[in-house]
Amino acid sequence: MIYFNCDYTEGAHPKIMEKLLSTNLEQTPGYGEDGYCSRAKELILQACDAPGAQVYFLVGGTQVNFTIIRSALRAHQGVISPVTGHINVHETGAVEATGHKILEVPCGVEGKLSAGQVEEIAAAHFAGSMPPIHMVQPKMVYISQPTENGAIYSKAELEALHAACQKWGLYLFADGARMGYGLSSREADFTLKDMARLCDAFTIGGTKCGALFGEAAVLTNPELQRDFGYAIKQNGGMLAKGRLLGLQFLTLFEDGLYTRICEEANRLAYEIADACKENGFTEYAPSPTNQQFFIFPDDILKKLEEKYHFSFWEKVDECRTAVRICTSWATTEENARALMEDIRAVGVKG
Amino acid sequence: MIYFNCDYTEGAHPKIMEKLLSTNLEQTPGYGEDGYCSRAKELILQACDAPGAQVYFLVGGTQVNFTIIRSALRAHQGVISPVTGHINVHETGAVEATGHKILEVPCGVEGKLSAGQVEEIAAAHFAGSMPPIHMVQPKMVYISQPTENGAIYSKAELEALHAACQKWGLYLFADGARMGYGLSSREADFTLKDMARLCDAFTIGGTKCGALFGEAAVLTNPELQRDFGYAIKQNGGMLAKGRLLGLQFLTLFEDGLYTRICEEANRLAYEIADACKENGFTEYAPSPTNQQFFIFPDDILKKLEEKYHFSFWEKVDECRTAVRICTSWATTEENARALMEDIRAVGVKG
Amino acid sequence: MIYFNCDYTEGAHPKIMEKLLSTNLEQTPGYGEDGYCSRAKELILQACDAPGAQVYFLVGGTQVNFTIIRSALRAHQGVISPVTGHINVHETGAVEATGHKILEVPCGVEGKLSAGQVEEIAAAHFAGSMPPIHMVQPKMVYISQPTENGAIYSKAELEALHAACQKWGLYLFADGARMGYGLSSREADFTLKDMARLCDAFTIGGTKCGALFGEAAVLTNPELQRDFGYAIKQNGGMLAKGRLLGLQFLTLFEDGLYTRICEEANRLAYEIADACKENGFTEYAPSPTNQQFFIFPDDILKKLEEKYHFSFWEKVDECRTAVRICTSWATTEENARALMEDIRAVGVKG
Amino acid sequence: MIYFNCDYTEGAHPKIMEKLLSTNLEQTPGYGEDGYCSRAKELILQACDAPGAQVYFLVGGTQVNFTIIRSALRAHQGVISPVTGHINVHETGAVEATGHKILEVPCGVEGKLSAGQVEEIAAAHFAGSMPPIHMVQPKMVYISQPTENGAIYSKAELEALHAACQKWGLYLFADGARMGYGLSSREADFTLKDMARLCDAFTIGGTKCGALFGEAAVLTNPELQRDFGYAIKQNGGMLAKGRLLGLQFLTLFEDGLYTRICEEANRLAYEIADACKENGFTEYAPSPTNQQFFIFPDDILKKLEEKYHFSFWEKVDECRTAVRICTSWATTEENARALMEDIRAVGVKG
Repeated sequence: MIYFNCDYTEGAHPKIMEKLLSTNLEQTPGYGEDGYCSRAKELILQACDAPGAQVYFLVGGTQVNFTIIRSALRAHQGVISPVTGHINVHETGAVEATGHKILEVPCGVEGKLSAGQVEEIAAAHFAGSMPPIHMVQPKMVYISQPTENGAIYSKAELEALHAACQKWGLYLFADGARMGYGLSSREADFTLKDMARLCDAFTIGGTKCGALFGEAAVLTNPELQRDFGYAIKQNGGMLAKGRLLGLQFLTLFEDGLYTRICEEANRLAYEIADACKENGFTEYAPSPTNQQFFIFPDDILKKLEEKYHFSFWEKVDECRTAVRICTSWATTEENARALMEDIRAVGVKG
Repeated sequence: MIYFNCDYTEGAHPKIMEKLLSTNLEQTPGYGEDGYCSRAKELILQACDAPGAQVYFLVGGTQVNFTIIRSALRAHQGVISPVTGHINVHETGAVEATGHKILEVPCGVEGKLSAGQVEEIAAAHFAGSMPPIHMVQPKMVYISQPTENGAIYSKAELEALHAACQKWGLYLFADGARMGYGLSSREADFTLKDMARLCDAFTIGGTKCGALFGEAAVLTNPELQRDFGYAIKQNGGMLAKGRLLGLQFLTLFEDGLYTRICEEANRLAYEIADACKENGFTEYAPSPTNQQFFIFPDDILKKLEEKYHFSFWEKVDECRTAVRICTSWATTEENARALMEDIRAVGVKG
Repeated sequence: MIYFNCDYTEGAHPKIMEKLLSTNLEQTPGYGEDGYCSRAKELILQACDAPGAQVYFLVGGTQVNFTIIRSALRAHQGVISPVTGHINVHETGAVEATGHKILEVPCGVEGKLSAGQVEEIAAAHFAGSMPPIHMVQPKMVYISQPTENGAIYSKAELEALHAACQKWGLYLFADGARMGYGLSSREADFTLKDMARLCDAFTIGGTKCGALFGEAAVLTNPELQRDFGYAIKQNGGMLAKGRLLGLQFLTLFEDGLYTRICEEANRLAYEIADACKENGFTEYAPSPTNQQFFIFPDDILKKLEEKYHFSFWEKVDECRTAVRICTSWATTEENARALMEDIRAVGVKG
Repeated sequence: MIYFNCDYTEGAHPKIMEKLLSTNLEQTPGYGEDGYCSRAKELILQACDAPGAQVYFLVGGTQVNFTIIRSALRAHQGVISPVTGHINVHETGAVEATGHKILEVPCGVEGKLSAGQVEEIAAAHFAGSMPPIHMVQPKMVYISQPTENGAIYSKAELEALHAACQKWGLYLFADGARMGYGLSSREADFTLKDMARLCDAFTIGGTKCGALFGEAAVLTNPELQRDFGYAIKQNGGMLAKGRLLGLQFLTLFEDGLYTRICEEANRLAYEIADACKENGFTEYAPSPTNQQFFIFPDDILKKLEEKYHFSFWEKVDECRTAVRICTSWATTEENARALMEDIRAVGVKG
């Protein structure tokens, strides 16, 4: 079986494995107080052009999300999220488990939130006809860049969100679990510098972008930096052998490996998408990144699934299903070609 | 100004005040361990015909809701609620503050949840294509009887909800902050016995139905009874002078006062509603209880509000607003008549 | 049976009952937005001579404690408390249930915390040899005035605690569930003005000092005032008929009733204590307030308990037990005399 | 500098690195649903001789502790722990942050809890003179095996704790962050089978015993197994590339590597301890495992610290300090010999 179901089916990029191996028996202080972590943080800050920001390394995605949110909010405050946001649907209520309501907002198939939606919620709360203290106070906006459905926010959209957040005193937090695929998308007009300039907090995902595990949290707002180390420890995100995180991000950021390997994954994803479209299959959601969403008739899907794993996304109707086809830094040209061949073979056109 | 904005603008029914006064200097044990509480619990159990149930008295509505929910659920479990449910919109995220997600479900203007909706959510979780552990596990269904918009569930609807909950291992919890107005509605086909038979937990509201304050929690499911006393204390719901709650519910339940005074409030509400309809004003949501929802042109509303307080409900369009007109056990015939007169005076018909 | 076990066995002072009765059918806005609450807050602020402070009314003692603590602390912060502090032993872990560790400190029989102890804990954390982020950060100091064992902090002690808290950036919070008995103690050298000047937050208890229920929270530190209304609502402390709290505190504070009735209770307590001492019974803890703690041989205690209820405090040895004897604003001269008589009758002297 | 300060200064045992490398580009399902995890779990269950138990892999120690505790307890329940227990002092209040009080119990320098202490607390709560609902209900006992001070519980002590827990309905949970060093101690009379037989839950630490990271949770009590997968995900302990945990534990358990490498670390620790004792330095706490605790005059310590890192433990008096000297699976004979030489050189004897 060949896995196209997600972007975490392999280990780490070989350069990362080499780095871990070559430093394996060195002795360093624990908890990320080592030189590799310091160096990796420097590189990320340089890439973000954000000298006042702070970088922290945590182990996983759910963890980094709820740790940032819990640390930023007071008990009566909540976080606005598109209804399909990862925190709202696929983290087992981790945010609520720390005491905070997710104020969910309807969104389209792209999974994006607009500045207008943020304005509307904030205005209803802070300038509405009801006494606000009976309702959760909006204090943060959560977006994913790219979204769960592969879409990316443009620089203009980010700027509009930023402006809305500034106006109403909200933090803007971008979950970048797949940031590498976003940054290297052919449609991207934003950079890490823009993320750092426009967000109070965002993450740069390692797990899905070449590392064994690990997420870098970039906190640009000094309010959010305060005592964040306690939050990491309390929420179980502090790795005893913290250098493992430093070593991985160091490798990813020292010569552009991070975006280079993601760009390659995007390229294969685009080719697969083209193969789908050319052969008569309908796009479920447009995506300029490594996740592609297509609708297949169930009988054709069944045939493809004899050889490939995809992610079930939605039952579209009685006889058709939307699936996610995912490439990653580890996807081989060979496997991608094989899939394209087979899509052509089952295709309804030509 | 005359208040029709809510059902908690006065103190308590005179019989309750008398009872509190006549027992004021008696010495009793604290924390509800007194004879008045015992007697009040007995009366409620008799009214519910539920000898295996347990009755507990708490001070307020938000409190009793989150205490029951927190006590019933494990950390990864959530509660299904209609989107307009009181716990979802007007309790400042109290349920989430105890760690639990509210799985909100769209609902119509009546604010009701259907058995079909419950089935759908439960099936998607327990019998779906996604591994359930990444999502909050539904474990409880929250409804309000009557709803926030004044509607009531019929016995058949409650039975269907009960069946769906039994099928999927969910607790059914009914928030009865206005139970008295529901029980005495001209459209009610359910009794407290039905509530006790079909719900795992429900409340009988005192605050809005004649008491100074106080909500009775009736827990019929033994699982929910276990250690509930600890939960009351931990969540701040245990009154030192617990007898104040016992004395009030005793008064309300010893000769049918509870439903008698609510029935009278409903009668006045129906008359006001008729006056609205007869004079050309549109119903916003149909209600067979003490809360009535009508849409007024803004200029007419402004005029009425020189003399009366209503609750703002929604801006319907540019020039019309929906308001809640609320009667209560304390509404006088005189005030209700005055309002009807004035509605006739501003009315668009005859 | 005559109850001396606690100070909440009766209802409310007759003047309070009168006030509630005479205003019972008035219509007012809910949730404490009424004129009685405003007036009561003014009176309390005047008594505190603290124009920048804010007063809030909550229903109960456990509730007001955890609401203030939760609202003040971030997730990684804890509250220092003497080991016998009410929050540490008799509130069912309510503070921990909101996510915060109580950093318990050993204390003597008086239940007091010293400035030196606070300094020691703070220095160990902020200036110690261990990296602080692995430990809970102390951020608040909790004391009770009077303590659970009836003792009071002198003005000098409060000033020292205040200085230690200022030095280390800690909030000082005083639980005044029995504040009235403290203020009117013959040994008190502090006033409400001192409390307001030296504490960031403190409470003025109604429940045990003449009211049916209700605690006034006085927040002098603007940081703690911010959004406190949300906290009250979220934690179930907001009474729909909020005026009930205003009316009670208004009555207690408009002509000095609060301390006058507590002073009388103290007087009776001192007389009972004298009777105990004169008749050979040993003091368990010295107390200048309404709670007295004495050790009785078990056979004598058994005899007294045929007629009186006391609170069990501790088994001192095989054949002796410490009990709490409590007077209150409601204790009658007659009952106090009867008890003294009986103590004399069983006494070992005279 | 040579690090003897803790047992997590290096990466992983070379066999683990080999395993990770050789499987790096294999495709497997995520979240621990792969064959390596299954096989590792089987091996652990075999070692425990506990077919009804379930094994789960989490990333870190703080995380696995609070996840087990939170998942096991209801909101009003607490966990008994020796005052020096890791959860009580070095996890930033993670347990309280999930809502649960730690009922701390005094303990000696070994950091052990006795069955008698458990009995006393349970009896005071469940069979005491105070109504229990005002206090946190004890429901779990937390111990560490070995303790934070290197001591181990004997089989008899574990059996006594087990009996006390059974008697009072408490769960027994053993934190085995350094389990390997305990199992291979020259004083150990217990095995993994005993742990599985006597505990409801325990962990087998990877991080400090040869792995890069990872803790295995062994839940023998079916009540604790229920829905534990949700708890792992919600609390951030579910690794996307879960096989990394499986691969490591597989390597540690397939041919006894786990205890073999820990035994060697113990051997070097004993030799270092002997060198300390023979040269006149006082033991701070007796330890039969890889952590040794010795008291050094400050001037001598300063000299040693020019070359070696130790962990500060306690200031014993004006001029002496207790430190922890830690060996691990990675400690080289060469470094250990060097330290012993230097201890001899500064020693006060011979």
